[in-house]
Amino acid sequence: MATVNTKTGQAVDRSILDSMLRRRLFYTPSFEIYGGVSGLYDYGPPGCSVVANIVDLWRKHFVLEEDMLEVDCTMLTPHEILKTSGHVEKFADWMCKDPKTGEIFRADHLVEEVLESRLKGDKEARGQKVAVDAEKEAKKKKKSKEAKAIKLDDAVVKEYEEVLAQIDNYGGPELEEIIAKYDIRNPTTDGNLLPPVAFNLMFQTAIGPSSNMPGYLRPETAQGQFLNFQKLLDFNNQSMPFASASIGKSFRNEISPRAGLLRVREFLMAEIEHYVDPEGGKKHSRFEEVKDVEMTLLNRNVQLAGSTQVEKMTIGKAVETGLVDNETLGYFLARIQIFLQKLGVDQNKVRFRQHMANEMAHYAADCWDAELLTSYGWIECVGCADRSAYDLTVHKNKTGAPLVVREPRAEPLKIEEWQIDLEKKKFGPRFKKDGKTVEAAVDALSQELREKLSLDLEQNGKIEIDVEGVGSGKVELEKDIINIEKRTRVENTREYTPNVIEPSFGIGRIFYAMIEHVYWSRAGDEARGVLSFPPLIAPTKVLLVPLSTHASFRPLSQRLMLKLRRMGVSNRVDDSSASIGKRYARNDELGTPFGITVDFQSVKDNTFTLRDRDSTKQVRASEDEILQAIKSMVDGDETWEDIRKRLPEFTGQDVE
Amino acid sequence: MATVNTKTGQAVDRSILDSMLRRRLFYTPSFEIYGGVSGLYDYGPPGCSVVANIVDLWRKHFVLEEDMLEVDCTMLTPHEILKTSGHVEKFADWMCKDPKTGEIFRADHLVEEVLESRLKGDKEARGQKVAVDAEKEAKKKKKSKEAKAIKLDDAVVKEYEEVLAQIDNYGGPELEEIIAKYDIRNPTTDGNLLPPVAFNLMFQTAIGPSSNMPGYLRPETAQGQFLNFQKLLDFNNQSMPFASASIGKSFRNEISPRAGLLRVREFLMAEIEHYVDPEGGKKHSRFEEVKDVEMTLLNRNVQLAGSTQVEKMTIGKAVETGLVDNETLGYFLARIQIFLQKLGVDQNKVRFRQHMANEMAHYAADCWDAELLTSYGWIECVGCADRSAYDLTVHKNKTGAPLVVREPRAEPLKIEEWQIDLEKKKFGPRFKKDGKTVEAAVDALSQELREKLSLDLEQNGKIEIDVEGVGSGKVELEKDIINIEKRTRVENTREYTPNVIEPSFGIGRIFYAMIEHVYWSRAGDEARGVLSFPPLIAPTKVLLVPLSTHASFRPLSQRLMLKLRRMGVSNRVDDSSASIGKRYARNDELGTPFGITVDFQSVKDNTFTLRDRDSTKQVRASEDEILQAIKSMVDGDETWEDIRKRLPEFTGQDVE
Repeated sequence: MATVNTKTGQAVDRSILDSMLRRRLFYTPSFEIYGGVSGLYDYGPPGCSVVANIVDLWRKHFVLEEDMLEVDCTMLTPHEILKTSGHVEKFADWMCKDPKTGEIFRADHLVEEVLESRLKGDKEARGQKVAVDAEKEAKKKKKSKEAKAIKLDDAVVKEYEEVLAQIDNYGGPELEEIIAKYDIRNPTTDGNLLPPVAFNLMFQTAIGPSSNMPGYLRPETAQGQFLNFQKLLDFNNQSMPFASASIGKSFRNEISPRAGLLRVREFLMAEIEHYVDPEGGKKHSRFEEVKDVEMTLLNRNVQLAGSTQVEKMTIGKAVETGLVDNETLGYFLARIQIFLQKLGVDQNKVRFRQHMANEMAHYAADCWDAELLTSYGWIECVGCADRSAYDLTVHKNKTGAPLVVREPRAEPLKIEEWQIDLEKKKFGPRFKKDGKTVEAAVDALSQELREKLSLDLEQNGKIEIDVEGVGSGKVELEKDIINIEKRTRVENTREYTPNVIEPSFGIGRIFYAMIEHVYWSRAGDEARGVLSFPPLIAPTKVLLVPLSTHASFRPLSQRLMLKLRRMGVSNRVDDSSASIGKRYARNDELGTPFGITVDFQSVKDNTFTLRDRDSTKQVRASEDEILQAIKSMVDGDETWEDIRKRLPEFTGQDVE
Repeated sequence: MATVNTKTGQAVDRSILDSMLRRRLFYTPSFEIYGGVSGLYDYGPPGCSVVANIVDLWRKHFVLEEDMLEVDCTMLTPHEILKTSGHVEKFADWMCKDPKTGEIFRADHLVEEVLESRLKGDKEARGQKVAVDAEKEAKKKKKSKEAKAIKLDDAVVKEYEEVLAQIDNYGGPELEEIIAKYDIRNPTTDGNLLPPVAFNLMFQTAIGPSSNMPGYLRPETAQGQFLNFQKLLDFNNQSMPFASASIGKSFRNEISPRAGLLRVREFLMAEIEHYVDPEGGKKHSRFEEVKDVEMTLLNRNVQLAGSTQVEKMTIGKAVETGLVDNETLGYFLARIQIFLQKLGVDQNKVRFRQHMANEMAHYAADCWDAELLTSYGWIECVGCADRSAYDLTVHKNKTGAPLVVREPRAEPLKIEEWQIDLEKKKFGPRFKKDGKTVEAAVDALSQELREKLSLDLEQNGKIEIDVEGVGSGKVELEKDIINIEKRTRVENTREYTPNVIEPSFGIGRIFYAMIEHVYWSRAGDEARGVLSFPPLIAPTKVLLVPLSTHASFRPLSQRLMLKLRRMGVSNRVDDSSASIGKRYARNDELGTPFGITVDFQSVKDNTFTLRDRDSTKQVRASEDEILQAIKSMVDGDETWEDIRKRLPEFTGQDVE
């Protein structure tokens, strides 16, 4: 667990940040008055607002920008669909049970915890400095045996590090082997554990009154989109490529969720399914626009070699060298990075990590995760998978629905092939009720066999073919009843199953990681937290602060409030009796970027001071100028630096 | 089933409308390629967009307008919470099973269906005209015995009509009685049914890997809001009244859903919980603003008398006369009506119906539904219930959490009461381990008893009290160990449990009913449907139609597209080869209010024609004028009539 610093160079103290976020009701454990349920959180007013702003930006950046077709599908999903998609069988984690205490552990997390703890003990024994996570430390002290300062062999250290670097690559058997090899036990009781068993992560329920239709809560929004593929293609006038998109809750029955908002059982996802022709190298018409975007990439082979060393290069170069498989995948990786930048994530805390082979979901052909660095380590916040034709194919095979694209060929395709004609007038009377079976057997003859049979027919005037279930299983056909000829068939239509590139966003994780990135505290006072949301993302854009509760102030703040609301700029009046410094401090914690102070001068000449959250600097100008400046910053047309240059500074009150 | 007409006086043909809505992908049955699941629907691109616009308007109209505290709570809800709230016991419908076929019927719907069918048969036998619902008719022919034209006694007709008028008022025993009395059977097989049994409508699941935490999908968003009451009150600086609000999916495992989007198993709700002091008549500070709003009201007593006769009156009058219980309830009823108007619902197809006593949810003290008239009859789209202090009280009692408001009293409250002092030094040694039990028994003594005991004590120097489980069950206390005195206690703080007024919106039902209200077809052509959404609600605001595929047109439509997008106005270019009439017809079905035609003149002088969907009239003006006119209409500042008056009409092409 590396120490992570804020923009201003302070170490992120998660316990202080967490308590601030809960106090300000960004989020709160669900059902807390009933003791809570791990992995379930509610969002309070500022959290709701930030999430709504992230979703809004997402919709503009992806859906509107590329005319994606947004759909909203149900969360309840019948068993059969998720059986076909492979989720019933494969959407599982490995868990180990302690037979004595009944405790259940997620196997990979247990291995991580124990090996990391041993490595830490080793460092201590070697007299090295160890980064301390105060919260984790406190928990450990309470519940598990003290991590012992025991020195390990250099070779063992290396082995542990290699195991940890590819922890996501292990399945059940590998985890079982590792647990046995390194004698990993229940960290609290030191008891032995049963071998890992698979636990399906979907919540099960029954649809309808008779309980005979089992179903699940969806684990992703994707399946609903795939099932509507044909209708969406129609809606798009058969035009390819195109994308569908969906924003909604999905569910994972996590084995033992920890890590706050980062591992929850119910979460908001935003997913894109971009359908692309698998032929022609999956080019993207707008790749040019992004090719110079600089990316931080961690490739699969580096990880398999036990390292986490990243490379920096443009996405253009990454696609050119084949590190990223194709333009469409590359286009979305770059667009994801631009989106994260707009949200305010710290560019130095973003990397794109390629999945290792065993780590990939059962449907994926390639996958890159956008990971954000937080005090919990590197966290997967966006996945970008190439699901190839997997899903459309399995659903097509199961239902017979034509989940395919049919398009006219520019050049008709000419195919030389052996064709068979049957003389129906004679064929029917001859075979009677067996006619269909015999005809099906004839149709099924391979090209190779047809060629051979045509020679037989020419030489002997008749042929013999196998027809199961008719007579002796052999049927003779004479020249006057069958004809086999090589002809040219012309295909004017091409039919193919599109491949799917799927950028998939975990909004809650992005929300939390982004908050860690914009969090810092005022110099010299750890308790004075600030959330430097970009204006676009901030829950409230403007705080209106009347300096006095005098009656003459109220009409001014009311007027500003209404004018801002009409401009679509969210704002709040704080006319409490708290000191102006306290009122601003409260709003620094809420991340409100701008403050307007209504003072005695305002009552006289209708000028106001405008305060910038991050610098605490102020300018003073007329009502219209102040409102216009705010609108301009909220729309992203100007920054505070621009405003400061063109409006006179104000240094009258200290409102840090 | 009354025939319902469109604005233009045509009868709504639901099968035509439905097929149009599905073809244009407003919605579609979920999992259709797997055969579908009744009661589950997906929303396609235009449906998603309309729903998003409804939600957006809702947030502005309610949440932002009154600074409500929006929260987003989990859908997964542990058993204990819904047990406490009463849903485990009471959130149920009555169902009847056919023991022979295994079919399951919702009891009240079955009674409705059979009695309505008999009434129809009676009308036919009397030679009266019967409104025909083509779709229903077709289904019935397929599956049930033909409704027979049998004349009923006048008295029986009256009985049936009275039963139907209060069908929502019956519980299981009443339904059982009616089914027996009127010999109601399986309409398909004529077989007898088992008596109604309660079926709980919540979807059940298990949270966590060990299956020992049963839970449900929430049936409403309200409980999550109530559980956070204390935190929300803190967030609101202890200030009352205030409201929380939530937008999200809820679930009802309907017995046998029919009626398309109107009865579904998963649905979007928007709910407000407005917390109000129960003392002082539940006044509302903004009631003045709405008191003259004219309402159409159907009161409880009228329904119990077997009628559905409405009354029109202002909400001010309704509150004054006590028909609507209080200002806060009245305020929200009026605000709901204004909201529905903004959406485009037909004012003549809205009524507010008061619930009958047995019909109300278990938590409600009073309830009014905003019902919208559709081809399915009057449909509850918004409920507005007074939940009194029910929920906060049950959760407070169960958990001990202080879900109350504490406020300083303007005047301290003085209470005269009998107080008891125990001489602890003697009391402890005397009772030893029984001390606590005895003390609790003393504390629990009523005021009456204390008064009597104080006399005993004075007279006898000792008293005797009952203490279960200590000694003989009687304990003697002497003057030197106990003292009873009348004193005055001063209470500076008032503590109370707020009452809750809950406006609760079914977004899917509003969506569907509103669409029926804005639907009509061009004169003389039933197949040419139009959806007259207000610009605010329309999925796409502007269609851009280049008259030719000539290369010189493309830069113009691209520029218009980008300019509109920058103005936040959603738009689509249709440069397909279809005729201009066809392209507009397609967009009439999608409800696109405005069309810009790019023609040869545009290429020359940068003027464009702007078409109004409803009138098909056009004006022609410069690019800037056209864009400004659109912006103005989308923002609701001007109407088409305003634009038509100030910009020159264009009659060049026929683009009806």
